[in-house]
Amino acid sequence: MPARPNVEALLFDVFGTVVDWRTSIIDDLSAFGAERGLSLDWATFADDWRALYQPAMEEVRSHRRAWTILDVLHRESLDKLCAKYGIADLSEADKDHINKVWHRLKPWPDTVEGLTRLKTRYIIGTLSNGNVGLLTRMAKFAGLPWDVVLGAETARAYKPLPQAYVNNAQLINLSPGQVMLVAAHNGDLAAAASAGLRTAFVPRPGEYGPGQTRDLSPERDWDVIADSFVSLAAAMHC
Amino acid sequence: MPARPNVEALLFDVFGTVVDWRTSIIDDLSAFGAERGLSLDWATFADDWRALYQPAMEEVRSHRRAWTILDVLHRESLDKLCAKYGIADLSEADKDHINKVWHRLKPWPDTVEGLTRLKTRYIIGTLSNGNVGLLTRMAKFAGLPWDVVLGAETARAYKPLPQAYVNNAQLINLSPGQVMLVAAHNGDLAAAASAGLRTAFVPRPGEYGPGQTRDLSPERDWDVIADSFVSLAAAMHC
Repeated sequence: MPARPNVEALLFDVFGTVVDWRTSIIDDLSAFGAERGLSLDWATFADDWRALYQPAMEEVRSHRRAWTILDVLHRESLDKLCAKYGIADLSEADKDHINKVWHRLKPWPDTVEGLTRLKTRYIIGTLSNGNVGLLTRMAKFAGLPWDVVLGAETARAYKPLPQAYVNNAQLINLSPGQVMLVAAHNGDLAAAASAGLRTAFVPRPGEYGPGQTRDLSPERDWDVIADSFVSLAAAMHC
Repeated sequence: MPARPNVEALLFDVFGTVVDWRTSIIDDLSAFGAERGLSLDWATFADDWRALYQPAMEEVRSHRRAWTILDVLHRESLDKLCAKYGIADLSEADKDHINKVWHRLKPWPDTVEGLTRLKTRYIIGTLSNGNVGLLTRMAKFAGLPWDVVLGAETARAYKPLPQAYVNNAQLINLSPGQVMLVAAHNGDLAAAASAGLRTAFVPRPGEYGPGQTRDLSPERDWDVIADSFVSLAAAMHC
C-alpha cells in the first residue's frame, strides 16, 4: 500500500464494523429472556429490530421528522416489536434494559488490538449513526480506546447524507481528504468517497449471520482493503 | 463526603483545571523563540494572549458575531500580539505553529492519575471552551484518557452560558443533576450549579503564575472540594 501522508484521522463505522451487534444482542437478550422466562427466537428478533433501523432514520433524513437520536428510534422500533412478539406487558425498566442492549455490544476479536495500534499514529474516532451517549457507553463496555466520539448527532445528519461525513471532519479541524472512513459496508464507503474522504474496507462476513449475502467483498477499489483491524493497522504502518 | 449515587459523568474544565496552560506556553514558546532568535518576555506574552480570551468569546456569546471556534479566536488574538510585540513578519507556518501551542499543553502532575482512576467508575469528558479538534489533539499530546470530548463547540455556546452545560449533559443522555463539573474556577462552577449540575472545585493556585489572586479558595460550599484530581478520585470512591 502506498503511504498516505495526508490522512490524520481514521473514523469508524461502528455497528457491524467495530462491534458484532447481532451476536451480542442474541447472547444478551437470550440471557435476559432466560431470567424472565421468555422463550423467543432472539436471532429473528435481532434481525427484525435491525430491519427497522434504516426506515426509522429515513424519516429524519427526509425531514418528515425533526432531528431524533438513535436511542429514541431504537426504542420506538422496540415497542413495535414488543407488540409483534406478544411481550408488550414488560415493565418500563425491562424495556429500557432491552433498548440499551445497543450500549452493550461486543467488539470483533481483532477490534481492540487494531484500534490500539492505530491510535499510536492517528486520531481514531467513531463516525456512526449511533448517538454520542450510546457510543460513549459502548466504548466503556467494550474497551474501545477512541480519541473522539463523533457521528450523526454531532453532524446533525444521518449517514449516508454528505453532511454526516463533512461536518465531522470539520469538527476535528480536517479537510475531508485528511480523514479515512473505515467500514464493512460498501454503501457507507461510497458516500464517504463522494464527500471527499479516504476509504478503508474491512469485510465482516458474519455480521448478518450465516446467510449474509451483501458486503462480502469490496465493490470498488477502496484506498485500503484489509481483512481485520490488525491488518488495517499494518497497512497504515502502525 | 456523602455518596453521590446520581452522578454518572464528570466533565472537566480544561484550561487551568486539567492543564497548566501558562507554564506550557512559556516553555514551548521559549524553546521556539530560541530556535528563531526571538527573545521575548514569553510569560507576559502568554498572559497578554490569555487576557484576550474572554473578550473574544464575548463577541460570540453576545451574538455580535456568528459562531466561531476557539482556534480561530486564538489566532486573531495572536495576530494582534504579533503586531504589538513586533514579530508580525513571522511566516504563516510559524504563526500556525505558535497558535497550536494550545494543542500542546501539559497536564498538572496529578491529572492523569486522577482521571485514570475516575474513568473506572464514571464517564469522564471535557466541558471546555476549546473546540473539539483542539481538545482531541491536546488529549493525545498529554495522555488524557477522556471517554468523550465535549465543549462549547458541541453545545454551540461558550461557557458560562447555561446551554454550554445543559446541551452537553443531554449529549450523553444525562440530566444536569447526573453530571458534575470539575473546575478550578468559582465562576464556572457557579454557572454550572445554576444550570443544575453538581460541582467539584480543585484549586490551581499556580495557574496564573506567582501573583495569582483569584480562585485560590472555594467561594461557595461546592459539592466536592479537593486539592488534586487524585484527592477528587478518592472523594468519589475511585
